[in-house]
Amino acid sequence: MTTSPLAPAVYPELPEIAGVRCASAYAAIRYKTPRPDVLLMTFDEGTVAAGVWTTSLTASAPVLRGRKALAEGKGSARVLVVNSGNSNAFTGQKGEIAVDETVKAASALVGCGEHEVFVASTGVIGEPLPYGKITAILPELYANQRAGAWEDAAKAILTTDTYAKYAEAQAVIDGVPVKIAGIAKGSGMIAPNMATMLAFVFTDAAVEHSALQEMLEASVDESFNAITVDSDTSTSDTLMLFATGKAGNAPFTAPHPAFLEALNKVTKELAHLVVKDGEGATKFIEIEVAGAEHKQAARKIGLAIANSPLVKTAIAGEDANWGRIVMAVGKSGERAERDRLCISIGGIAVARNGEVVEGYDEAPVAKHMKGEHIRIAVDVGVGNGKATVWTCDLTKRYIEINADYRS
Amino acid sequence: MTTSPLAPAVYPELPEIAGVRCASAYAAIRYKTPRPDVLLMTFDEGTVAAGVWTTSLTASAPVLRGRKALAEGKGSARVLVVNSGNSNAFTGQKGEIAVDETVKAASALVGCGEHEVFVASTGVIGEPLPYGKITAILPELYANQRAGAWEDAAKAILTTDTYAKYAEAQAVIDGVPVKIAGIAKGSGMIAPNMATMLAFVFTDAAVEHSALQEMLEASVDESFNAITVDSDTSTSDTLMLFATGKAGNAPFTAPHPAFLEALNKVTKELAHLVVKDGEGATKFIEIEVAGAEHKQAARKIGLAIANSPLVKTAIAGEDANWGRIVMAVGKSGERAERDRLCISIGGIAVARNGEVVEGYDEAPVAKHMKGEHIRIAVDVGVGNGKATVWTCDLTKRYIEINADYRS
Repeated sequence: MTTSPLAPAVYPELPEIAGVRCASAYAAIRYKTPRPDVLLMTFDEGTVAAGVWTTSLTASAPVLRGRKALAEGKGSARVLVVNSGNSNAFTGQKGEIAVDETVKAASALVGCGEHEVFVASTGVIGEPLPYGKITAILPELYANQRAGAWEDAAKAILTTDTYAKYAEAQAVIDGVPVKIAGIAKGSGMIAPNMATMLAFVFTDAAVEHSALQEMLEASVDESFNAITVDSDTSTSDTLMLFATGKAGNAPFTAPHPAFLEALNKVTKELAHLVVKDGEGATKFIEIEVAGAEHKQAARKIGLAIANSPLVKTAIAGEDANWGRIVMAVGKSGERAERDRLCISIGGIAVARNGEVVEGYDEAPVAKHMKGEHIRIAVDVGVGNGKATVWTCDLTKRYIEINADYRS
Repeated sequence: MTTSPLAPAVYPELPEIAGVRCASAYAAIRYKTPRPDVLLMTFDEGTVAAGVWTTSLTASAPVLRGRKALAEGKGSARVLVVNSGNSNAFTGQKGEIAVDETVKAASALVGCGEHEVFVASTGVIGEPLPYGKITAILPELYANQRAGAWEDAAKAILTTDTYAKYAEAQAVIDGVPVKIAGIAKGSGMIAPNMATMLAFVFTDAAVEHSALQEMLEASVDESFNAITVDSDTSTSDTLMLFATGKAGNAPFTAPHPAFLEALNKVTKELAHLVVKDGEGATKFIEIEVAGAEHKQAARKIGLAIANSPLVKTAIAGEDANWGRIVMAVGKSGERAERDRLCISIGGIAVARNGEVVEGYDEAPVAKHMKGEHIRIAVDVGVGNGKATVWTCDLTKRYIEINADYRS
């Protein structure tokens, strides 16, 4: 698999998070060529988790269990087991057994409650997960764990991704420095309805469960919920945040601005990395919508543009076809004043008050379209609602990847 | 442009409709290579029209005017002027002037009221329509008109279509035979929100305006509103039905079952022809949803499957990847019982009660996937709501066509 042309030139070095260890290995879940496909992460006692999962009504067994365990354990977390290659979705009773057996094996190994074990699976839908391969390899993984092995963790969760995804940030809480490190995977079946396929974020800050959950939900709304690759929502989308409390700050019980800002930096970076690894992507597209009735309307207009196959293919062809942007605004279903609509591409005004600008010179816009980062701004002339969404272009490579993925 | 592999082997021969004449010509609206791009149709006095137009909030000037004229004239119709190459959408004040001037020239030529003239435009968005080329050629077209020139009419309205689209049907109304003939165009920017880009249907039946409108709306709901190529809704979608009343039946004032049945045959055939000419299409896909909460829910689930890029690319790759169908059901937002979900492909059960069928043999399904007509049936296990939708696959050719269309 060729690496996406939008892959970062330099990967950030993630800090160790005290209280977090991990190891990965190849268990032949699905892939015939060896590559890490099972990840075990363990957390020191006292670790608190928050999570958001897919809104899909056909959610996978691990998703349903994660939601339940988080509620039952009030956020207490000791273990995370992730596999790639098989999503354990639409596997009926067998799917639940696979989760139960994995959880039992992990909790016995680590010596913690079953509600403190979280599992996540990503890959093909509808095939029974060979969970025996996971439970068999857990003791070896447990023995091999170490702190700061981010590369092992990030690589074990990939499927059609072309690069591993990392982000980090720091914050100072009441004079105490805290660290945040995150990893993510995903490049297809990405649409903004709760997180990307899988993302895990870790911090040494001490945070109470409800505050952690509140901050995670706020953060996901401005990051993973504002991206789309192909409008398809996965049955396995999972975003979890684990806080070990080792930094030594006084545990905070309500959202903390400095922490939230650092968390937003990590989730936004990870979300952008997912878009930049969108299947077949050659352009990263930022769409700023203003003048909408309210924020949700602006988001919906932005996503109508971002999900339009005609807009996405025009950008793939480096064609500043703004007529298709007009079309997408019109189909969004949200209020827009056709005769007040303004559009700019790469900061250059293209249309104003519902028609092309007087003496429109396409040359500078055409030049912008040749770049890798395309910026579209639309004002729909109705109110003050604003939102930004991110997506990628739609290319022949997307078709190639997805016409051949399973077979 | 290569003809779609799904094009019909034989085109139906359309009957003359008494009271309908037409002519087309090349007026160099946009295309540099000569091809008919302006169509004039005229109707005898007493002709009644019905129409449905795009629900887009950025609808084109011809759409806005057509809606208004139909209401003002209570359905009276004498002229239809259509051009291809330029949709006169998002052209501001200039767009309205272009429509007004075309209407004035046509009404003066034919000697009818301005509200009896309908215009439709299809093609590129956002460029001023050179309407002077249309008004200049109208007298020549008017002189050259003849009855039954369906090929001239059907070809003049095409844009990226690879073949012209015709359908016909007959009915007997109180012992009097009546005829229906229809033409359509469209192959991209097709999504079910009121008709395809352009379709015009003609009948010699005598029907009162309100009954005609009621039947057209019922008919569109089961045809054009149940198809999708790429989920993108055009700013120009127009479907009009003209009834000349020359057949001699006693005019009917309420929907007539035999007429509606014949009309449904025509609109459904035209809608299927549009899908089969979907940009880059190699497979015609029929999706039957049953067991939904109600009919609209079934439609929405069907469209979630039909619009999923991952489902469409899997079918392009002849891969019976039913896991993606599960995913699409889940993202539709409509109620579905994951553990009662049943899926069949080509009439062969694939999944039952939320998991793959015992001893599932992929061979016959794989064989079905190699055909041109793919049948997917889904039962979501909740209620009695049913709906069928039609779409096509998503191929590299779609990207090629749309990355290069405008430049």
